[in-house]
Amino acid sequence: MKTTEKKITSGLAPQEVAAELAPLVDFQPAGLPLDELQQLFRERLVPHFVDYGHPGFHSLYNFFLEPGADLGATLAQVHNQGVTNWQVSPGGVMLEELCCQALCRLFGLGPKAEGTFMFSGTYANQQAIYLALHRRAEQCGFDFAVEGLNGFDDPRRLALVASEEAHFSLRQTLRMMGLGETCLHTVRADARRRMDSRALARKLAELRESHDIFCVVATAGTSSIGSIDPLDDVLEQCRDLATWVHLDGAYGLIYSLLEEKQDLFPGIGHFDSIIWDPHKQFGVPIPSSLIFLKDGADFQRMAIYSDYFNRKQEREPNPGLKSPPSTRPLSALPLVAALRHQGLDGIKARLRAPLSVVARAVDYVTDHGELELMLPPDLGIFCVRVQPAGLAPEVLNDLQQYLYQRVIREGRRSVSLTVIEDRAALRFLILSPATRLADIIDTFDYLLEIARDFNYPGKK
Amino acid sequence: MKTTEKKITSGLAPQEVAAELAPLVDFQPAGLPLDELQQLFRERLVPHFVDYGHPGFHSLYNFFLEPGADLGATLAQVHNQGVTNWQVSPGGVMLEELCCQALCRLFGLGPKAEGTFMFSGTYANQQAIYLALHRRAEQCGFDFAVEGLNGFDDPRRLALVASEEAHFSLRQTLRMMGLGETCLHTVRADARRRMDSRALARKLAELRESHDIFCVVATAGTSSIGSIDPLDDVLEQCRDLATWVHLDGAYGLIYSLLEEKQDLFPGIGHFDSIIWDPHKQFGVPIPSSLIFLKDGADFQRMAIYSDYFNRKQEREPNPGLKSPPSTRPLSALPLVAALRHQGLDGIKARLRAPLSVVARAVDYVTDHGELELMLPPDLGIFCVRVQPAGLAPEVLNDLQQYLYQRVIREGRRSVSLTVIEDRAALRFLILSPATRLADIIDTFDYLLEIARDFNYPGKK
Repeated sequence: MKTTEKKITSGLAPQEVAAELAPLVDFQPAGLPLDELQQLFRERLVPHFVDYGHPGFHSLYNFFLEPGADLGATLAQVHNQGVTNWQVSPGGVMLEELCCQALCRLFGLGPKAEGTFMFSGTYANQQAIYLALHRRAEQCGFDFAVEGLNGFDDPRRLALVASEEAHFSLRQTLRMMGLGETCLHTVRADARRRMDSRALARKLAELRESHDIFCVVATAGTSSIGSIDPLDDVLEQCRDLATWVHLDGAYGLIYSLLEEKQDLFPGIGHFDSIIWDPHKQFGVPIPSSLIFLKDGADFQRMAIYSDYFNRKQEREPNPGLKSPPSTRPLSALPLVAALRHQGLDGIKARLRAPLSVVARAVDYVTDHGELELMLPPDLGIFCVRVQPAGLAPEVLNDLQQYLYQRVIREGRRSVSLTVIEDRAALRFLILSPATRLADIIDTFDYLLEIARDFNYPGKK
Repeated sequence: MKTTEKKITSGLAPQEVAAELAPLVDFQPAGLPLDELQQLFRERLVPHFVDYGHPGFHSLYNFFLEPGADLGATLAQVHNQGVTNWQVSPGGVMLEELCCQALCRLFGLGPKAEGTFMFSGTYANQQAIYLALHRRAEQCGFDFAVEGLNGFDDPRRLALVASEEAHFSLRQTLRMMGLGETCLHTVRADARRRMDSRALARKLAELRESHDIFCVVATAGTSSIGSIDPLDDVLEQCRDLATWVHLDGAYGLIYSLLEEKQDLFPGIGHFDSIIWDPHKQFGVPIPSSLIFLKDGADFQRMAIYSDYFNRKQEREPNPGLKSPPSTRPLSALPLVAALRHQGLDGIKARLRAPLSVVARAVDYVTDHGELELMLPPDLGIFCVRVQPAGLAPEVLNDLQQYLYQRVIREGRRSVSLTVIEDRAALRFLILSPATRLADIIDTFDYLLEIARDFNYPGKK
């Protein structure tokens, strides 16, 4: 069990970590020299960080810093450049604009496409839904920015359609936007947790009469298990609805660059909006998110002007008019640096490595009598149910829960727990190109070993 | 004119900067070694950055990196820690929680107060307004997260009250939240651009019958000119309204730590929510924003759970439940490092230095026949109208516009342009403790010098 020798994190309990950190936030009148401060952080804080580069880290979208990204991030940090408007940083503003244009070309998003950096996928999704509502209001003859939901004849008719597997931030967005979760109409996912095309057709037919479907959301790489909705079916079914079609590609969009995955990404240039989180695979500082619009002119729906800032008559590029925040960091720089340092061939190799390891891990699980694969993966996430020989089916959910808790407490591995159709499972997310099949097998062995300690009623 | 020798930025036009940067975003199959990449950035990008540490930079809230903040930011970057939940980073999560608790004590926010880091003041304001609506819905007997604005008997009655000087992000928030800008009812500002107490009383009396005032927003340090609303009057007038009272302290809250400014900050512990942007004075990487709630339990209004992440039964601290984003950076670390390295005494000295320089600059302007002070400043922002002898009053607005454009184009200084009651003026925002009165006088001299080149109808 080589990879368990070094811990991923200290594994201390919250009150123990709190005791360690208390001196750090004891704000005193006198200052501390940098070397003392450095030592304090090194001794008391860093041991309780999580090592995302550890070969046993298989759980979350966090990633260790990549050398190119590090160079770009350091430069951005040293100069602390904002990119809200031309006056704040001509170089920063122009780099963001050019980077977004280059990314639109890279993803093949069409001649009118534009993008901008967002603070997180959640806010990027929020913005997409806002744009959808704003356009629908315009079709209804009023300015959503002025009248809001009250401008609609009957706001209760507004409906947003998404798969039941869509990210929970969609619910958060509907809450924040005053639509409420009742506005969300979910479509059943199929056995592979992709949106079911026939269920979508039924849902749209059903809602068409009673509701105003202003937005349909597809997902390319669900956060939970990485499934990709049938994008061409979604686009095709929305064609005559005059609805905004949004693609949540936070995790999955980048895989459209791989030739062998392109049949999973048909027609992405036809989505009205797409979001993507480069921090998930590029080793750039978190957070790094983008929104792309098929028609860049739609960004004008976000613009807001003031007398002392973002003046209307200014002609210079102004990314600050494309999204709500009036303070924006230079997130383009670490991404540009990562892309240039690795090169597109390097990027593709780094994306392929974990997918290939996942494919081999899936074969291993399939052949293993005490591990059950929950479903075949579309990308780099797979879910496994540990089922040691002789264990009754009714205690298996509790077993997965036990394994998860113990893994977290011991700090030697990191996996997630999830529930698929009422069946608990351990979730493996492989992002790092350095992860080997042997590392994953080590984790399986470790899980099977600690499973022996699981106590349940009737255990002999 | 010493401080004009070194430029603040290159001053090139957008198309020229674009030409310089084009090779950076030419994403090629092959990668570039780090040293070549570094050189490319140094030669082609950095000259178009803005030097926020330049003594002639008097325009925006951007700040150069402070050594303590740099140490903390570098550590956060190297480990790329997320702080969404315990599993992502026990150390990061606990540091954020403890830092927020310590800040609540530092600002004297009361025993139940809690805070969390936000991505920007705009999103922090958005969250405050959401919480206000959510609580009002609860008072009306329904769950805002589920029913949204439709749950209110008549959503058109909802009213948010704020000064006409409140930040434009408030309008952005009302747009994003489906309330529309018609929901905003502004109160006239007085001659010092503070919310006028009598006008507030009239507005509340007028709206009380016809509307449902769910939120009143006060500002401590307006972004435009740093005025502080009469906080005790606002609190007093809202006492029997059962309304949420929010304080936008993005720029100004920190000055409440100065003994000599405390009479401008009465009762800040009574606001339901307060926002603050540490990036404005602490030299931490942008963005760094916080929201504080008088009753930390109100954060539960934001919580959203899922099966694979942020599970409901977990007992560990979880900052990710306090705001929408599911990816959150460790913004607490640079702030903690800055606070510990400078010490509270150092912080206060750094806050006082620019205020003292501003007071002396105001005296200078008052005594100067060709400069007009627009109004006495509450904090570190003052606005000046350049009026060379013999110039007709009707061309003065155009003159300020000319001066601003030329300053930006030349890249030797940085000031802003603003409009106060239809009169254009140049805005000076002094944040850096290194700025001397002589630097500001240099800028005045420069402005008066280039004012001679201003052409206008009838110029001899």
